[in-house]
Amino acid sequence: MKAAFYESKGKISVGEGKSIAPGKGEVRLDVAYCGVCGTDVHIFHGVMDQRVSPPQTVGHEASAVVAEVGEGVTNVKVGDKVAVRPLHFGDEHPFDKGFKHVGKNLKFIGIDSSGAFQNSWTVPSYTLHKLPEQLSLMHGAFIEPLAVACHDVKIGRVQKGENCLVIGGGPIGTLIGYVLKEKGANVFISEVNETRLKMLNELGFTTINPAKEKLNDRISELTNEKMIDCAFEVSGSAPGVQTMTEVVNVRGRIVMVAIHGGEQKKVDLFKFFWSEIELLGARLYEEGDYDEAIRIADSGFIPFEQLITKVDDLDNIQNVFDEIDKNPEGMKYLIKCNDN
Amino acid sequence: MKAAFYESKGKISVGEGKSIAPGKGEVRLDVAYCGVCGTDVHIFHGVMDQRVSPPQTVGHEASAVVAEVGEGVTNVKVGDKVAVRPLHFGDEHPFDKGFKHVGKNLKFIGIDSSGAFQNSWTVPSYTLHKLPEQLSLMHGAFIEPLAVACHDVKIGRVQKGENCLVIGGGPIGTLIGYVLKEKGANVFISEVNETRLKMLNELGFTTINPAKEKLNDRISELTNEKMIDCAFEVSGSAPGVQTMTEVVNVRGRIVMVAIHGGEQKKVDLFKFFWSEIELLGARLYEEGDYDEAIRIADSGFIPFEQLITKVDDLDNIQNVFDEIDKNPEGMKYLIKCNDN
Repeated sequence: MKAAFYESKGKISVGEGKSIAPGKGEVRLDVAYCGVCGTDVHIFHGVMDQRVSPPQTVGHEASAVVAEVGEGVTNVKVGDKVAVRPLHFGDEHPFDKGFKHVGKNLKFIGIDSSGAFQNSWTVPSYTLHKLPEQLSLMHGAFIEPLAVACHDVKIGRVQKGENCLVIGGGPIGTLIGYVLKEKGANVFISEVNETRLKMLNELGFTTINPAKEKLNDRISELTNEKMIDCAFEVSGSAPGVQTMTEVVNVRGRIVMVAIHGGEQKKVDLFKFFWSEIELLGARLYEEGDYDEAIRIADSGFIPFEQLITKVDDLDNIQNVFDEIDKNPEGMKYLIKCNDN
Repeated sequence: MKAAFYESKGKISVGEGKSIAPGKGEVRLDVAYCGVCGTDVHIFHGVMDQRVSPPQTVGHEASAVVAEVGEGVTNVKVGDKVAVRPLHFGDEHPFDKGFKHVGKNLKFIGIDSSGAFQNSWTVPSYTLHKLPEQLSLMHGAFIEPLAVACHDVKIGRVQKGENCLVIGGGPIGTLIGYVLKEKGANVFISEVNETRLKMLNELGFTTINPAKEKLNDRISELTNEKMIDCAFEVSGSAPGVQTMTEVVNVRGRIVMVAIHGGEQKKVDLFKFFWSEIELLGARLYEEGDYDEAIRIADSGFIPFEQLITKVDDLDNIQNVFDEIDKNPEGMKYLIKCNDN
């Protein structure tokens, strides 16, 4: 069987992988599609070499068909279409307070262990969520990032009719936009890339380019001075961090979606006090977020086809990663990992 | 009648004030005691000259006796002992979402208009909360800062048995400590001033001096590695802002009590993402926080006498402010505004 291997900065090879028979509580999958996540691109750039173990198969936004089930597996059967929640829960720690998805001993499958860019992938059965019959496997590869978006919106406690601003209109920002729309919120997306803005407009989103117009004035106009009830910081940028506190109203919430690593950024803590605003961290997903993502995907609410920049074969994975680097305007690239 | 007037930086005079007959919905009070708040000290330092209108009577931590009621006042009668919630609600704004205590048009009585450092003070009747008969007027002057503490703890959603860290053991930090204890939380106070530490220890608090021991290690030890469920940033310092993110556990809350004005401080936004922590702004109080403060004060749970550094007459107010400047270890100074 075939597998892709991240070798070193900028290099992914495709070669012979090892099909692993499922042990007790495990399932062997024929991977169908696997999306390329920003994290995979970070790995490709060599910045996560301390965490991955090259040559390593990465990838975690997978849809698949159950090929083989190990002893004691009852939640899926051979032939089932599934999405994978790639979290390997470690021992519980008092610090975690039962929130296993962000626990101290959590391992992320596809980063800390072998991922989905291969024909055959063996994972714990508890990571699997069955896909509805009518949902295509191609769309099933969106369940993982869509579950991230569902988790973010849940953390933001968004109610119908609320004004929401998504800061950063990339793949995750766009999916958050759709989940918000599905909840009945008024959605605005702030983005500086003109190609992405054009695409978001075509998808029906109200967009603002803060490089071209005064964001606060525009939002005040759009919301009749009420401003934003819940903002999502997805940009990972210093201007995004300034915007997030400026736009929210009294008791407004800000969901911290982006990974602000590196040097700490300055934050307007005065505004927290003055208007009693909230900053709420959100990471990954819980089991229910997958259920919600599958429900929304199955409803047909999201035009996934329009979010796919390209689908390519596993054999061409090096080209796909090279192309992503050259195309900052791309949305979702999918790797076809099998002919199922 | 006598009143104190903030004149200019470092100068408060005492002279003849004007007793104002209560208009419709207003009440004239004989002020009993009024505590000196950090905000009053800021005004004394001249840093709020844009907001106050010298010569102006300031002060807002007041207990009082109702002297005269205006037309239509039904909630209090002459002779009632009261605490004052010094908020003058302005017109509602869509931005406020009904949270009047932090509304765009809120005026703070005692800063934006005449305050309590005088014999006679006229305020809207809706600002008044009746004090229980057995609660002394001297202790009644603590209701305002205690309501701040009640509000902070409410915003922090603290539950019985949770581990809480108060960063900064001044008057507000100490009152937060008491409210937390009353709720059944495990309370730790971080403070660097040795005199305050000694006092806090004598009051029965578990304290940590981060200048002398590793705060995180000590908290890990005290909490069996669970760390802090809810931290209160009361220090207003850059080290406090670093500590607040370091100590909290998964889904841990941080209540932003301090006023971080001036240059923005750096914040560890990565931790928000990684452990899904929350930063919750808290300002002033809502009506129910006064009810809660009066309940706790009336229960005798807080040894107010031990928190009083000094009680002095209105005539000596200049000396009191001068002394506060020379005594960073002081806790609560009260001004006696009448002989009631």
